[in-house]
Amino acid sequence: MSTIQESLAALVSALPPDTVITDPAEMDLYRWDRANDPNAGVPLAVVLATSTEDVQAAVRFAAATGTPVVPRGAGSGLSGGSSAVDGCLVVSLERMRAIEVDAGTRMATVQPGAFNSEVKAAAAEHGLWYPPDPASFEFCSIGGNVATNAGGLCCVKYGVTTDYVLGLTVVLAAGRAVRLGGPRVKDVAGFSLLKLFVGSEGTLGIITEAILRLVPPQRPPTTLAATFPTLSGATDAVIALTRSARASMLEFMDRTTINAVEDATGMGLDRDAAAILLIQSDDHPQAAAAEIAEMEAICLRYGASCRTTADPVESEALVEARRIAIPAVERTGTVLLEDVGVPIPRLGDLILGIERIAEARQVTIAVLAHAGDGNTHPLVVFDPADAEQRVRAEIAYGEVMDLAIALGGTITGEHGVGRLKRPWLAGYLGPDVLELNHRIKAALDPDNILNPGTIVERSGA
Amino acid sequence: MSTIQESLAALVSALPPDTVITDPAEMDLYRWDRANDPNAGVPLAVVLATSTEDVQAAVRFAAATGTPVVPRGAGSGLSGGSSAVDGCLVVSLERMRAIEVDAGTRMATVQPGAFNSEVKAAAAEHGLWYPPDPASFEFCSIGGNVATNAGGLCCVKYGVTTDYVLGLTVVLAAGRAVRLGGPRVKDVAGFSLLKLFVGSEGTLGIITEAILRLVPPQRPPTTLAATFPTLSGATDAVIALTRSARASMLEFMDRTTINAVEDATGMGLDRDAAAILLIQSDDHPQAAAAEIAEMEAICLRYGASCRTTADPVESEALVEARRIAIPAVERTGTVLLEDVGVPIPRLGDLILGIERIAEARQVTIAVLAHAGDGNTHPLVVFDPADAEQRVRAEIAYGEVMDLAIALGGTITGEHGVGRLKRPWLAGYLGPDVLELNHRIKAALDPDNILNPGTIVERSGA
Repeated sequence: MSTIQESLAALVSALPPDTVITDPAEMDLYRWDRANDPNAGVPLAVVLATSTEDVQAAVRFAAATGTPVVPRGAGSGLSGGSSAVDGCLVVSLERMRAIEVDAGTRMATVQPGAFNSEVKAAAAEHGLWYPPDPASFEFCSIGGNVATNAGGLCCVKYGVTTDYVLGLTVVLAAGRAVRLGGPRVKDVAGFSLLKLFVGSEGTLGIITEAILRLVPPQRPPTTLAATFPTLSGATDAVIALTRSARASMLEFMDRTTINAVEDATGMGLDRDAAAILLIQSDDHPQAAAAEIAEMEAICLRYGASCRTTADPVESEALVEARRIAIPAVERTGTVLLEDVGVPIPRLGDLILGIERIAEARQVTIAVLAHAGDGNTHPLVVFDPADAEQRVRAEIAYGEVMDLAIALGGTITGEHGVGRLKRPWLAGYLGPDVLELNHRIKAALDPDNILNPGTIVERSGA
Repeated sequence: MSTIQESLAALVSALPPDTVITDPAEMDLYRWDRANDPNAGVPLAVVLATSTEDVQAAVRFAAATGTPVVPRGAGSGLSGGSSAVDGCLVVSLERMRAIEVDAGTRMATVQPGAFNSEVKAAAAEHGLWYPPDPASFEFCSIGGNVATNAGGLCCVKYGVTTDYVLGLTVVLAAGRAVRLGGPRVKDVAGFSLLKLFVGSEGTLGIITEAILRLVPPQRPPTTLAATFPTLSGATDAVIALTRSARASMLEFMDRTTINAVEDATGMGLDRDAAAILLIQSDDHPQAAAAEIAEMEAICLRYGASCRTTADPVESEALVEARRIAIPAVERTGTVLLEDVGVPIPRLGDLILGIERIAEARQVTIAVLAHAGDGNTHPLVVFDPADAEQRVRAEIAYGEVMDLAIALGGTITGEHGVGRLKRPWLAGYLGPDVLELNHRIKAALDPDNILNPGTIVERSGA
């Protein structure tokens, strides 16, 4: 019996019963996240942690044996940040799902495995709202949301995950657990470690509890669906809309996306449209009507045909159409999912440039976007059986990021760098800021135990 | 001529004319911030930087000669974070005040020396609003706001400075300048260095430009002034108010503060009241009336007498009374200004506990508070000519922080640790989180050049 197996046996006996998986077939469920990284490795074991102490025991084992640790929530990551590496210990937080809402202070104390939708539901039981709403909110975990600083549809008005994180319990690289922040709205004592851990994708520590800020509920929104005959009409409208109104949702779908959604739903979207903007106002009913009318006038000016509804069922059907867009496109082939963002005035250049890349590389790229904050999701679609097409798709995937960088944009707005986007991070950040990232990693995880290869690589890449 | 003087001469000749002060009398203006630290040192020289390049030259000089650098905005800091240390180079950003507003993207690009009020005014010219509003907004700089993650009166609804910072240009310890973030609402590529530099009080780098998010203007608020016969009535009302309403301002003044303000203004505040809550709603006019009525009902239930006004002049007079509270109390003696925060449910325990500390130490402690987010400013008043009273005041100052920690609160909600609160930081953070702070400092400023002694001390304290 090798030393690592002896150490693993000691870990198994130190943890509660049935918390460690070593059966290869069972471990297969923990090798990939939703990015389906073809280079995902084979874990040594999977720990189904039930407490902060379990996570500490797992990390101590990892630190003692030099084993990489890959933390994992719901496995819905889109950049390969929770795909396994060979010989790693996967620490799954899926069993840690407790949610405690304090209506008095409008805060929720949440374990990382709880789904975003479960936090929203728990808050709603107390007449409160947790705003961040990734399209995957029904099957993504809060731990993953915090680890990637996830965004969503309402962020254009309500901000992203980091804006709602008041406190974290984090297990550090050596196995110590610390509390950062707490149930306080304002706290500036010491460096903003709390905010540094948000978005660190499991590479600086493993989040085992989060204290989240809740707010009073959103008002029922009024919805505007604007169908555009031209792409540039839609992107010009976005620029005009963000200049003068304050939508609580401002989403974009191009023709390919519209057709995939229409194939999946048969809800009657215009298959010939170049793009649809899905717009909401959740202001006071009196003000919302005026705001929607103002936004409709802008869309009309850019050639759209418009439909407005304050009916909650019809509104929700339109939003649901947007939410299922990624799965709908995934039905048409294998997808490389992009997440590039640009300053709003460059949105048209980005979307038209993506169209040119698709033509040049002879691949389909469906584009949907959180248009109101310049964050787009180009989906490069390819036939997995066509090796040559796959290569062209991968080239296009990289070219989309290069284009975003050239337009003053980012390679990832809300999904994270993970392992799949790491090769582009240096080009985006430049050598000086990349070096700062390495210094932070080296300061907090000197032995490179935590999710190695995500965001930064030890070699300097 | 010593080596340091030769190096300084080289720096002077490398900088634009009239940017370096070495005259001791002139340098006196740069030794203290508003905390009036009695231990402030004497600088070697003061650089009045006019550009990022000037700051880089100053920091390179400092790095080459081992000279401490103390960055300084408007000198309105309240924790001694910009008071000079002996032999330091003060880098004043007061000449870097450019403000450029892009109404299309709703962003402002701002140099650090611009006052908060100047940013607000520039945004207002484009029909936009920069929310963070320290009471000192007319004489504090944006650079200092970012460096301390400053708060203010509207934070209870609109968040703090970090929520509005999208990008920073920072000069690092070795003199390199980097850009972090940028004009993008969403960006998760790499660690959240941007958020780490916000609130780092000049100890990790010197901010030379900030890109700030602007929002549509606040609606004209409706104001409620609620006068309470008992302290506990007022603090219980705060707990009830934050549970059910969403005030855009929720400020507290105790009797001592009320009387100081009344002495200064003669505006007719009730000198016998135990406390006044100053409350605003800026919701849509229809909703604001209902929200104010609901909040008034809560205050009445806790024994208050209430006055409501939607008149902008009367509203502004009441808010101005709150804003001048600190200067008004400062007229009554020398002040040690506290900034402790607690979870809202502990607000009563904190304020009553402060009253007990004042009695036990036989000093006056005036309390004002951003009550809606649990952030209080106890002002310990003493006669500077009475050495024995000063000692009791200093003991009380520490006891207030110890009390806040015991109540699950923070030693500083919005002013920063500076040099004056550093002795309490270890007790608040605990050894593990303090050690993380030291690791961050060592990673980004290994030679301890940048604002040494602020937040953390090299020795480990």
